Amino acid sequence: MKRIARSFGFAFVIVGRLLASNVTLAQFDWLPSWNDGPVKQAIIKFVQTTTDSKNAQFVPPEQRIATFDQDGTLWVEHPIYTQVVFCLDRVPAVVKQKPELANVEPFKTVLSGDREAMSKLSTEDLLKIVAATLTGMTVEQFQNEVRTWVATAKDPRWKRPYTELTYLPMQELLKYLRANGYKTYIVTGGGQDFVRVYSQQVYGIPPEQVVGSAGATKFGYDKSGKPILIKEPKLLLNDDHAGKPEGIHLMIGRRPYAAVGNSTGDQQMLEYTHAGDGLRLAMIVLHNDAEREYAYGPAQGLPNTKVGTFTQSLYDEAKKNGWIVISMKDDWKQIFSKQ
Amino acid sequence: MKRIARSFGFAFVIVGRLLASNVTLAQFDWLPSWNDGPVKQAIIKFVQTTTDSKNAQFVPPEQRIATFDQDGTLWVEHPIYTQVVFCLDRVPAVVKQKPELANVEPFKTVLSGDREAMSKLSTEDLLKIVAATLTGMTVEQFQNEVRTWVATAKDPRWKRPYTELTYLPMQELLKYLRANGYKTYIVTGGGQDFVRVYSQQVYGIPPEQVVGSAGATKFGYDKSGKPILIKEPKLLLNDDHAGKPEGIHLMIGRRPYAAVGNSTGDQQMLEYTHAGDGLRLAMIVLHNDAEREYAYGPAQGLPNTKVGTFTQSLYDEAKKNGWIVISMKDDWKQIFSKQ
Repeated sequence: MKRIARSFGFAFVIVGRLLASNVTLAQFDWLPSWNDGPVKQAIIKFVQTTTDSKNAQFVPPEQRIATFDQDGTLWVEHPIYTQVVFCLDRVPAVVKQKPELANVEPFKTVLSGDREAMSKLSTEDLLKIVAATLTGMTVEQFQNEVRTWVATAKDPRWKRPYTELTYLPMQELLKYLRANGYKTYIVTGGGQDFVRVYSQQVYGIPPEQVVGSAGATKFGYDKSGKPILIKEPKLLLNDDHAGKPEGIHLMIGRRPYAAVGNSTGDQQMLEYTHAGDGLRLAMIVLHNDAEREYAYGPAQGLPNTKVGTFTQSLYDEAKKNGWIVISMKDDWKQIFSKQ
Repeated sequence: MKRIARSFGFAFVIVGRLLASNVTLAQFDWLPSWNDGPVKQAIIKFVQTTTDSKNAQFVPPEQRIATFDQDGTLWVEHPIYTQVVFCLDRVPAVVKQKPELANVEPFKTVLSGDREAMSKLSTEDLLKIVAATLTGMTVEQFQNEVRTWVATAKDPRWKRPYTELTYLPMQELLKYLRANGYKTYIVTGGGQDFVRVYSQQVYGIPPEQVVGSAGATKFGYDKSGKPILIKEPKLLLNDDHAGKPEGIHLMIGRRPYAAVGNSTGDQQMLEYTHAGDGLRLAMIVLHNDAEREYAYGPAQGLPNTKVGTFTQSLYDEAKKNGWIVISMKDDWKQIFSKQ
């Protein structure tokens, strides 16, 4: 009974504060880092409409699913995806365990530390590095490695942990949606096992609500007979482009009511979300703020990029379909969750 | 504010009743259909221990995951898996759309209605039927077909909808675990898309908490340009035997604290669950009640079966490991959720 009494006490404090401050839940500003304007208003209208039981476009709580891309949507993806940095950083440890790799490409180049040469590695080379650094260990060993790396690695430009480079406006949006009964998911082209390690701590999203590119695991027993799962170099789900709605169906089984992305890899997720009945929210972040973060497209004449490409045709599709284009420069008062 | 006020009112009624009746939450019997005895006591001890914050074996709420096999664990699987009946029932509609199949095996045999001949169909034949009846349509078309079938089809022995042939003691266990912060999942060798259609209504388990054998879908556009997902005849996850812990890792990403099954297909899930740190609950149902349900093993001298095989070696492993063997005959006062 004690715990119940305690929850009641806490709830009373909240209710008391709201009454005292004369602010209702509807008036509370959940999105203080968003500049006032059509984008912020569209988000609020979406949430108020779909949670108003008297509205024809009301969405029952259990159907309230919102999916967010991660790289470039929830946190920084330039100049190189965070998980790729992790893989490169892991190479010395892998070579230590398998010394024969030291003189074999692409490991030799990575060990040299020559950033210029590393930036020219082919996709095939990168896949070799991915296979060597993300597979061949138990899922717990991998989780421990990621946990340690995430706690210590720092972004070279901001000299801060990558986990502090999440976008404050998106963190507010996640909380706003959850406060209104939405289940928030990450749907990422990045590795599902990688993101799941820190998703709760960084975004308040539990591991089971992370959908990402996923490799197979193999059940077996270790030398002492203990059951283990070994990460295998076999891709089960390439959760990018068409793989995003396919991954959403596989892992969630419901069409989202809201989806947010920032690149061509998110196009099909946004299309799939937007094609559902009733009111849907499809949003896409335009990185047009080189000073506070990065600027890339090539939509709207922004510099071209291979990391998080946002083409002009995707921009045109967004405008034509009534998706919301978020201008990082104009819509966000503050970029990062920790200044 | 109105909704908050209403929830508070409701909570007060509950608390008031508990105080008035002098019954505390801990004393309330969540498992009235379970006979008193070591099995029921072990369940209660597991729940009380893992939810007691002062206990060394306390499990934080976010880690409380419980996984349940479906066929033979939550509902009847004999003499034939319910989903197989669905597939066979769908054959006439499939042949109507593709008349050329009428004279091709195994469709010809199924159309003949000859139960004896049907029971002799090979695995290869069944896979052809599965592919023809479970793939080639949009996910929404499939969901509608399952919804219609589930609402009308009846079990021939009890002459009642299959959804009324769930086990009352298991329904109570699901509710008891959920009332104690456990997230309940179905982890089934059956089709994930099939079970997800009725899991909320039948078990109170939302579709995103159903892990099952899953086929690929293919994202595309229909003639009007609308995005669609088509079910493909390509297996992504064979969620049985070793595939169960592998599927749990893929879809949930956490090791369960409790797992319940009834056959060799659940062995690896139980091993994986039981191998975790702290207190874990691994349970396995023995179908030894031919009168009220069915009796099959071949463990403990029960008749052999191909549907839900429970071997003697699995029984011995359960006893050796301290898993709980549930005797349907002795532990359950009532079998079905609707009498």
